[in-house]
Amino acid sequence: MFPDEIAVLEANSAFYRAFAERDLAAMEELWAQQAPVACIHPGWDALRGRERVMRSWRGLLEGDAPRIRCTAASAHVLGPVAFVVCGERISGGPPLVATNVFVREGSRWRLCHHQAGMVAQPSEEAPPGAKA
Amino acid sequence: MFPDEIAVLEANSAFYRAFAERDLAAMEELWAQQAPVACIHPGWDALRGRERVMRSWRGLLEGDAPRIRCTAASAHVLGPVAFVVCGERISGGPPLVATNVFVREGSRWRLCHHQAGMVAQPSEEAPPGAKA
Repeated sequence: MFPDEIAVLEANSAFYRAFAERDLAAMEELWAQQAPVACIHPGWDALRGRERVMRSWRGLLEGDAPRIRCTAASAHVLGPVAFVVCGERISGGPPLVATNVFVREGSRWRLCHHQAGMVAQPSEEAPPGAKA
Repeated sequence: MFPDEIAVLEANSAFYRAFAERDLAAMEELWAQQAPVACIHPGWDALRGRERVMRSWRGLLEGDAPRIRCTAASAHVLGPVAFVVCGERISGGPPLVATNVFVREGSRWRLCHHQAGMVAQPSEEAPPGAKA
C-alpha cells in the first residue's frame, strides 16, 4: 500500500473514531477548512456548505445517533484528492455503505464529502431490478 | 460559475444522458480509463474496479432499470478532481440523491465514482433519529 493510501485510511479511521467517541472538536478538525464541503447522511437530502454540514454533525454527536463501525475500507488516491469506499455497521441496524472524499490541506487529509446509504443486499452481486 | 464547474456539470449531464438513452458506448467513454473506479448503486454493496462497475452498467442499460432525471446538481472542483452532488428523480419512484466523482484525464472529466441512495425526507432539514 502506498503512503498516501495509508494516510487516507488513517484519516478515514479518525473520522469514525470521532463519530464513535462523540468528539465534536475532532470532527470539526477533520472536515476541510478551505475546500467546498457537502454531506449526505442516510435518508437525508444533500447538505452543502461547511456550516450546514457541521451543524448536522453537532446534532448527531449531541443526539442519540447510533454507534457505527467502519468495515472493508479501500482508499482510491487521485493526486491531492482521495475517496474511500467502506461499509458501516450499526449494532442492530441495517448494513450501510459509504463514500468519503478527502482533500489534502497542508499536511492533512481532510473530509470534504460523505455519503452513506443502506445496503439492501450485502454482497457485490446486483440485486434484480436495482436502480442506479 | 468557473469553466471547470461548467465542464464538470456537462460531464455529469452526459452521464445521465447516457443512462437515459441506454448508450453503453457513451457510458464506457464516460468512466475513467486510468484512475481507480468504484460505484455504489442504490441498495447495492460497493463495486470496485472498472470491469465490475462496467458490468453493472451493462446489466442496467440492457435491463429494465428506470429512467432517471438529474436535478439540482452542484459541482465542487478540487483541482484535477471534482465531485457533483445532485438529486435523481424516477417517475413513480422515491427521490434519490447522488454523489458523482470526476477526475481529469487528458482534456476530459471522467467519472471514477458514483453513489446514489434514497431520500427518506426530501429537504435539507435533518429527519429525527437519522443516521450518519
